[in-house]
Amino acid sequence: MTSLRCVLPLLLLISLPALAADPLPSWSEGANKQHIIEFVQAVTAEGSRDYVKPAERIAVFDNDGTLWTEQPAYFEVLFAFDEIKRLAPRHPEWKTTQPFKAVLDNDHQALAQSGMEGLLKIIGATHTGITTDAFIDNAKTWLAQARHPKTGKPYTEMIYQPMLEMLDYLRSQQFKTYIVSGGDTAFMRAFAEVVYGVPPEQVIGSNFVTAFQIKDGAPQVLRTAKLAHNDDGPGKPESIDSIIGRRPILAFGNSDGDLQMLQWTAAGQGKRFMGLVHHTDATREWAYDRNSHIGRLDKALDEARTKGWTVVDMATEWKRIYPFEPAVQQQVQ
Amino acid sequence: MTSLRCVLPLLLLISLPALAADPLPSWSEGANKQHIIEFVQAVTAEGSRDYVKPAERIAVFDNDGTLWTEQPAYFEVLFAFDEIKRLAPRHPEWKTTQPFKAVLDNDHQALAQSGMEGLLKIIGATHTGITTDAFIDNAKTWLAQARHPKTGKPYTEMIYQPMLEMLDYLRSQQFKTYIVSGGDTAFMRAFAEVVYGVPPEQVIGSNFVTAFQIKDGAPQVLRTAKLAHNDDGPGKPESIDSIIGRRPILAFGNSDGDLQMLQWTAAGQGKRFMGLVHHTDATREWAYDRNSHIGRLDKALDEARTKGWTVVDMATEWKRIYPFEPAVQQQVQ
Repeated sequence: MTSLRCVLPLLLLISLPALAADPLPSWSEGANKQHIIEFVQAVTAEGSRDYVKPAERIAVFDNDGTLWTEQPAYFEVLFAFDEIKRLAPRHPEWKTTQPFKAVLDNDHQALAQSGMEGLLKIIGATHTGITTDAFIDNAKTWLAQARHPKTGKPYTEMIYQPMLEMLDYLRSQQFKTYIVSGGDTAFMRAFAEVVYGVPPEQVIGSNFVTAFQIKDGAPQVLRTAKLAHNDDGPGKPESIDSIIGRRPILAFGNSDGDLQMLQWTAAGQGKRFMGLVHHTDATREWAYDRNSHIGRLDKALDEARTKGWTVVDMATEWKRIYPFEPAVQQQVQ
Repeated sequence: MTSLRCVLPLLLLISLPALAADPLPSWSEGANKQHIIEFVQAVTAEGSRDYVKPAERIAVFDNDGTLWTEQPAYFEVLFAFDEIKRLAPRHPEWKTTQPFKAVLDNDHQALAQSGMEGLLKIIGATHTGITTDAFIDNAKTWLAQARHPKTGKPYTEMIYQPMLEMLDYLRSQQFKTYIVSGGDTAFMRAFAEVVYGVPPEQVIGSNFVTAFQIKDGAPQVLRTAKLAHNDDGPGKPESIDSIIGRRPILAFGNSDGDLQMLQWTAAGQGKRFMGLVHHTDATREWAYDRNSHIGRLDKALDEARTKGWTVVDMATEWKRIYPFEPAVQQQVQ
C-alpha cells in the first residue's frame, strides 16, 4: 500500500494539465478556437497519427497586426519619427532638409510626398550608424515613455490578449514560438521577451549589415546603413530557412506580407496550421483589409479561403483585444 | 512515516546530479579541466556572485578544428571535390575547364594554382543553384558514404570526444550550445543534430542569399550563387549579434578566425570563459598553429596568452581524441 500511496500523488500531478482551464479564454467558442485546440492536441498526443516531436514544434508569428496593433502606423515608424525629434539638436541641417523637416514640422503632406525614399532616410538616420546595444537602449527608452495616439497606452500594451494566450498555450505544449516579422530584429528584441515571452534568439526580422570593430579597446557591433535582409513576403520563408532551418508546423500572420510564410508552412509534410488575423473591428481596434496601405490583406485572404486556412474575425472571435480591456461577451453564430 | 517514505525517493532523485560521475572523463586532470568545471559551477550555482540565468547561458563553438578535425583539408571542401566528380557526367565541359578539370584529374598542382577563385567556383558549383533541402540531402548522402583519407572512418566520427563531453556537460547545466563556424550553415545542419546534439536553429555558419519561389505549384527555397554572409573572423560576432541577440558567456575556437568571437565574448559583463584548442598532437591528430594555411593559430594564441584565456594542449590534455579510440592515460605535469 505504501508504494501505491507514493505513486498516487504523482499521478495526480501528471493528470493536472488535462484538467487545466480553457487555454484560450479570450477566444469566443467557435470553429476557429476549436481548430486551434484540435491541431495542438493532434500534433502533441503521443501515438497520434499527426504526432510531431517537441523539437520540431516550430510556430512562427508575424508581429505588426498579428501580435500587436499596426495602426495608425507601424509603431516602429512612429519610433523613428520621435527619434528624429530627439536627435534634431545634433543635426541643425534637418530643419531645412526633407524628409527630416517634415517630421520636425509634423507636416504629414510633405512626409507623404517624400514617399518610401524619405521613409528609408528616416529609418537610416535613426536605426543605423550606432551599435546594436545603443539602438536597443534607444528603443527601450522610447517604449517606456511613448504613448499610443488613440488609446494613450504604452505601445507594449497594444498587444493582442488572444494571441498572448495562444503563445502561452503553444509553449505549454512544448512548441518553440518565433516571431518572423518585417520589423527590425533589434527593435523587436527590445520588448519581445518581456512582452511576449519570446527570447532574442527567437526573434527574426529585417536587419542591417553590421560591422564588428574595436573602438578604444572595446569590441562593438556597429549597424551600417546597408540593408542585409528585408523580412517581408518571400523574405520570411528565406529567413526561416536560413535561421531556423526547420519548416514551421504553425504560422500566423495578418497581411499579404505573410503569404509566402504561410505557403511555405502549408507545403510541409504532415498536419499544419495556417492562420490569419482579419482586422474587422473598427470600434475596438481597426477594420481594414484589401485596400489598406498598412497591412494589406488581399491575396492572402483569397488564398486562405481557397485553401481552408483559418481566418480569425477579430470582431466576433476575440472577446478581448488588449490585456487592459475587460472581456466582452461576443455573440457567436 | 508514509509521507517520509514518499519524499525520500524524491530527495534521492534530486541529489543524484551532485553525485554524478566526472562530466569530462576524456580530459586529463589539470588546471584547464578544473577551470572549465569551476566556471560552470560559478555561473550555475544559485546565489553565486557569478550566477547567470539559464536563458543567458549561451555557449558558442567553432566547428572545424574545434569540434571535428580539419585536416588534411576542411571536410566541406573534400565534400565539394567529391560532388564535382559525382556531378561531372552532367557537365561534360568540366573535363576541359579549370578548376573542375583539376578536381576530376586529382591534379593537386593545378588545383592549388586555381587558388581561392578556383575554390569558390567549386563551392558555387556544388553548393548553389539547388534548394536547401536538396543540398542537405546531398551532404547527408556524402557523409554516409565518404571516408577520411587517413583513418578510413566516416567524417562524422572524426569528432573530438572531449568536446562532445563538454557540450553534454554544458547542456546538462542548462547552457544553450551553438555552433558558430565558417562552414556552410546547411552543410553543418546535415549532421550537427545527430552528431553533436546541436539542433538546426543553433547552427550558425556562412550562407548564400536564397530565393523563395513556387515551382510547379510547390514552394521552395533556392540557394543562389551570391554569398550572404562569411561567418569567419569578424563575421562571427556579427552573426551572434544578428541571430542570437545575446552575448555568449563561453566561446571555444581553435584559430585566428575565432579571435573576434572570443574578444566579443570576453568583453561582456560578468564571468566569461574563452577557450582555444591547440593542435599539438602529430601522432593521434595533427600538430599545427602559426604557419598552417588551415586553421592558422597565431594572433589568437598570442592574445589568449596575454589575456589568460584557456589554451588546451591536445597532446597532453585529451586522453582520447576520437570516440572510436580507446582512452590513453596521459602524463600530467
